[in-house]
Amino acid sequence: MNYKIALIPGDGIGPEIVTEAKKVLDQVCGVYGHSFSYEEVLLGGASIDVHGVPLTDEAVETAKASDAVLMGSIGGDAKTSPWYQLEPSKRPEAGLLAIRKALNLFANLRPAYLYDELKGACPLKEEVIGDGFDMIIVRELTGGLYFGERKTVVENGVTTAVDTLTYNENEIRRIAVKAFDIAMKRNKKVTSVDKANVLDSSRLWRRVVEEVAKDYPEVALEHMLVDNCAMQLVHDPGQFDVILTENMFGDILSDEASMVTGSIGMLSSASLNETKFGLYEPSHGSAPDIAGKGIANPLATILSAAMMLRYSLDLDKEADAVEAAVQKVLTEGYRTVDIMADGMKQVGTKEMGDLIAERI
Amino acid sequence: MNYKIALIPGDGIGPEIVTEAKKVLDQVCGVYGHSFSYEEVLLGGASIDVHGVPLTDEAVETAKASDAVLMGSIGGDAKTSPWYQLEPSKRPEAGLLAIRKALNLFANLRPAYLYDELKGACPLKEEVIGDGFDMIIVRELTGGLYFGERKTVVENGVTTAVDTLTYNENEIRRIAVKAFDIAMKRNKKVTSVDKANVLDSSRLWRRVVEEVAKDYPEVALEHMLVDNCAMQLVHDPGQFDVILTENMFGDILSDEASMVTGSIGMLSSASLNETKFGLYEPSHGSAPDIAGKGIANPLATILSAAMMLRYSLDLDKEADAVEAAVQKVLTEGYRTVDIMADGMKQVGTKEMGDLIAERI
Ligand SMILES: CC(C)[C@H](C(=O)O)[C@@H](O)C(=O)O
Ligand SMILES: CC(C)[C@H](C(=O)O)[C@@H](O)C(=O)O
Repeated sequence: MNYKIALIPGDGIGPEIVTEAKKVLDQVCGVYGHSFSYEEVLLGGASIDVHGVPLTDEAVETAKASDAVLMGSIGGDAKTSPWYQLEPSKRPEAGLLAIRKALNLFANLRPAYLYDELKGACPLKEEVIGDGFDMIIVRELTGGLYFGERKTVVENGVTTAVDTLTYNENEIRRIAVKAFDIAMKRNKKVTSVDKANVLDSSRLWRRVVEEVAKDYPEVALEHMLVDNCAMQLVHDPGQFDVILTENMFGDILSDEASMVTGSIGMLSSASLNETKFGLYEPSHGSAPDIAGKGIANPLATILSAAMMLRYSLDLDKEADAVEAAVQKVLTEGYRTVDIMADGMKQVGTKEMGDLIAERI
Repeated sequence: MNYKIALIPGDGIGPEIVTEAKKVLDQVCGVYGHSFSYEEVLLGGASIDVHGVPLTDEAVETAKASDAVLMGSIGGDAKTSPWYQLEPSKRPEAGLLAIRKALNLFANLRPAYLYDELKGACPLKEEVIGDGFDMIIVRELTGGLYFGERKTVVENGVTTAVDTLTYNENEIRRIAVKAFDIAMKRNKKVTSVDKANVLDSSRLWRRVVEEVAKDYPEVALEHMLVDNCAMQLVHDPGQFDVILTENMFGDILSDEASMVTGSIGMLSSASLNETKFGLYEPSHGSAPDIAGKGIANPLATILSAAMMLRYSLDLDKEADAVEAAVQKVLTEGYRTVDIMADGMKQVGTKEMGDLIAERI
């Protein structure tokens, strides 16, 4: 089959890790007889450097005309990069928020699990890890506080800033449905996280999630307050299967969860709209401090490419092959520096990409 | 000296742990020649049971007429308690929010540190713990999303809920000043946490914090995004001294931090207004599942009483004595069940209170 992929190398280590993911996809094409055509799209700092803005309309059009988008990472060092002299709405991150909205990518899926081989990198003690953990965070990505009206006003010489957190029931329903659908293919447990003891939006969230749950009698639903969830992720991460939550809580909790695995360099993500279309990117950032050194871990991006094969292109077998190759390379003892341990074989970004491609 | 203390036993294990804290304060009075008069105040479920509402005006007046308020914990089991049949604004937690606002308790201080004796209870591996950690979270407590305007409206059959996050510069300034004052007595480092890459309120937050920092040239200030902070607390908690943040981020991060210590049963908190007045309570909740069993850990409440002695009553020597007694009892190997470990001596709530009182 022929597919059109929009590629966003982005900033920092982005271009290096996307190169390796593309290498793996090329191998998939060769082995399974597909053909992917790539169109490069500028986003974030890379777009600012060329166009003066972090996202252009043409970039959005190219993305829309593709079957899926594969991204590296965007942004730079906030202390030193000239991008951060610009006002916030013109910085690299604003481009990411804008493309999510423009492509209606309301469903952010972030798996957080512990590879047996990488238990040593997990910051938690063995007795807390228990049998390990394997959860997926389903974060609403185009609503809530990050997309609400905001303003900063001066009255009687006093400056006041306002942000607004808005959700309507349809926005909540569609993300809840995603979470329950995913739970059906996993361990059939959804933990919906909110702050319903305080927020109106959380009370609506809880009500709509309860309604959706009625269509999934096999799925066990529990509600958890966000402060408690932040504790439970450290205390007993093994209790979670699918965590369903709104935009800001999801931002905080998914980063916490990925750090709890100890291997953020391994974690992929997908941001989907109502169709099969999606944007795929690693959970980690652009790591400007190690950019260009050839040592970044490309596995999160390669695993994001696998998610793309599975969710947007319906190429399950091919996705399995990529995931199996990653597993194999870990079992064989190859490690980039971020997950390096005694007795393992340290490799760079390119070598890791080669190793995966060879095992497809 | 004579002092008037308002006592809020509250719900769940609240009455048991407050009894032990009072026992310790009585001992302090005897040894140091003070006299404390206590007035009991109903809050939360205990107030609902008697008055039908979680907080009465008289309760607020009694608290205001006192030199300080010492509280146990409020709330019950949301699944089984009749309190949670009431609408949210009438539940136990609403009483806590209301008393914070009524007493203008804008500064919530939550220490999170690791006792050497309790390293075993910490969920983090030894190499992550490093030299241990000792931080204090300074959370703004009467502004932001938890106190903003909210509404739920139905338009064309679609329900929409709105919460509002508002901060003005004065609200930010006074909490920042608290944080910097505290940092001056500690390791002179403030980490201000926000989401300035997205929120207007966070941008104002950052600007005002920068301004306040100018008056504290000795204090090192760093800004950290909230998602990153949620990661860093797990990855390297030793990097923090004072974390300064707004209400909701503080709610989430302080709970995460206390779980990272592994000994939430040991952690105290203070909520202060612009004067010396404050409300003191343990960081943990009301643990309805173990209420009445005589096994709850009273140390967080006893340490909260020590904070009260120090911050509201200016009795530093007496506060030191309480803290030293807690340290001594730990060194001697006494433990409640939540922090029990091999070779230690397990004691109940009352016994633990006695042990501390005897060592004053
Ligand atoms: C860059 C930023 C706006 C973004 C977010 O907060 O959504 C990022 O932290 C993420 O989680 O993808
Ligand atoms: C009970 C609840 C309203 C409260 C809060 O969120 O402020 C609690 O979680 C806390 O942190 O003291």
